[in-house]
Amino acid sequence: MTTADAARPIGVFDSGVGGLTVVRALMERLPLESIIYFGDTARVPYGVKSVATIEHFTEQITRFLLQRDVKMLIIACNTMAAVAAHVVHRLAGSIPVLDVIEAGARAAVAESPGGRIGVIGTPTTINSNAYARRMHALDASVRVYSQACPLFVPLVEEGWLDHEVTRLTAQEYLRPVLAEDVDSLVLGCTHYPLLKPLLRDVAGPAVKLIDSAVTTAEFAAQRLQHERLAYGGDSPATYRCVVSDVPLRFQTIGERFLGRSLGQVEKVDW
Amino acid sequence: MTTADAARPIGVFDSGVGGLTVVRALMERLPLESIIYFGDTARVPYGVKSVATIEHFTEQITRFLLQRDVKMLIIACNTMAAVAAHVVHRLAGSIPVLDVIEAGARAAVAESPGGRIGVIGTPTTINSNAYARRMHALDASVRVYSQACPLFVPLVEEGWLDHEVTRLTAQEYLRPVLAEDVDSLVLGCTHYPLLKPLLRDVAGPAVKLIDSAVTTAEFAAQRLQHERLAYGGDSPATYRCVVSDVPLRFQTIGERFLGRSLGQVEKVDW
Repeated sequence: MTTADAARPIGVFDSGVGGLTVVRALMERLPLESIIYFGDTARVPYGVKSVATIEHFTEQITRFLLQRDVKMLIIACNTMAAVAAHVVHRLAGSIPVLDVIEAGARAAVAESPGGRIGVIGTPTTINSNAYARRMHALDASVRVYSQACPLFVPLVEEGWLDHEVTRLTAQEYLRPVLAEDVDSLVLGCTHYPLLKPLLRDVAGPAVKLIDSAVTTAEFAAQRLQHERLAYGGDSPATYRCVVSDVPLRFQTIGERFLGRSLGQVEKVDW
Repeated sequence: MTTADAARPIGVFDSGVGGLTVVRALMERLPLESIIYFGDTARVPYGVKSVATIEHFTEQITRFLLQRDVKMLIIACNTMAAVAAHVVHRLAGSIPVLDVIEAGARAAVAESPGGRIGVIGTPTTINSNAYARRMHALDASVRVYSQACPLFVPLVEEGWLDHEVTRLTAQEYLRPVLAEDVDSLVLGCTHYPLLKPLLRDVAGPAVKLIDSAVTTAEFAAQRLQHERLAYGGDSPATYRCVVSDVPLRFQTIGERFLGRSLGQVEKVDW
């Protein structure tokens, strides 16, 4: 393994800006690693599209990042992880591929002593049943209670993170899941970490919130060590953000997710 | 003018399912006319995308409908009408082009005796200032008060048409517009007619709601007469619905907008 191999960036991608919550967690957990982020802002949201369309878009993005010579791919989009992870693995060959569902499922199973796990996400993620399948593969005794929350993404993008409307919406969505006395609640969408304070209030202190951005960064650190791909040089990390559109308020929304300035944003035309 | 010319369908298009409210109004106002509808469901919503991207998508859809030999084009998407109507006019040549902003602007100016007009729509529509420009071109004395309502589209698609969350959201969005004592309120997005009962409650009886789906159908009827393109034969009207994706819950949501069964839906791969 040469230094040049380890110096390559980690490729992170999402259907829009949400995956920047994963980038933020990676920057904090792995400050020496360079990152290239791709957000498909021209075609967001994926959560309401068909599987065939999501597979097609996922293939396009994976090829783009592989051309940029990444050393690891992270699917920072629950919808793509739920229905199109096989596309990424097939194209990536020997390059390690991580995704937010695998990370969230592992953390939830490890941290739910009673084995009662709630999962919230977009309609496509929830309908795919991907979280329940992965959790059951890890521990067949867990019980999984899922709920689609289609309004959470627009509420986060509107910036209503601590608004009465968002609280009422959360109460309505979470009611059936909380009625099952879950031990933990997986935030199965990269937008949801921004609602953590409000969801913690609504869910109450007995329910542990599993933030898959944080758990994904932890698994990435372990995997880089294991594959001897962790960067140990002294060049400063570089961060690149590539999008398929620069929509209205992109800078504001992106910086809310990343928790810092976005720097220069590159646009591709598809 | 031959009968064959008049027998051609009217082409109606939108970024998603919202334009079906215009199709519904056309079916009621012009029951003899055939209609082909295109909804760009793979790339919806447009309301948060850049102008360059919207122009590009608009060109693709216009070319598609012109190949299907339409006799009139109706831009049933406020966002496309606001920022890309020139693209449609350029490609359409002598084929008449109507759009929901022109229709809504004319109706609002005609029906606001005090000349104080509120407009609500997506961020892109409102930021384009297209309604205010068209209204001022018709009557320079009107005052226009605009408000972007980004959460209304997802609330309608969730089906929360008479929900406390929607009511609170509407109260918050409309507060600044209602404070200006408007005579009328233009529903500047094809999703909003489904919120009419709730918006009427929130706005109060003194404010006239302008539904641009209905006004567009009225202008289409006038224009077909004027251009001698109205169909007078006895073949039954045909309705075709073409989309770029068949997402989850498409049938349910589409039928809520159309107010009846959707029939067969054709999908194109772009």
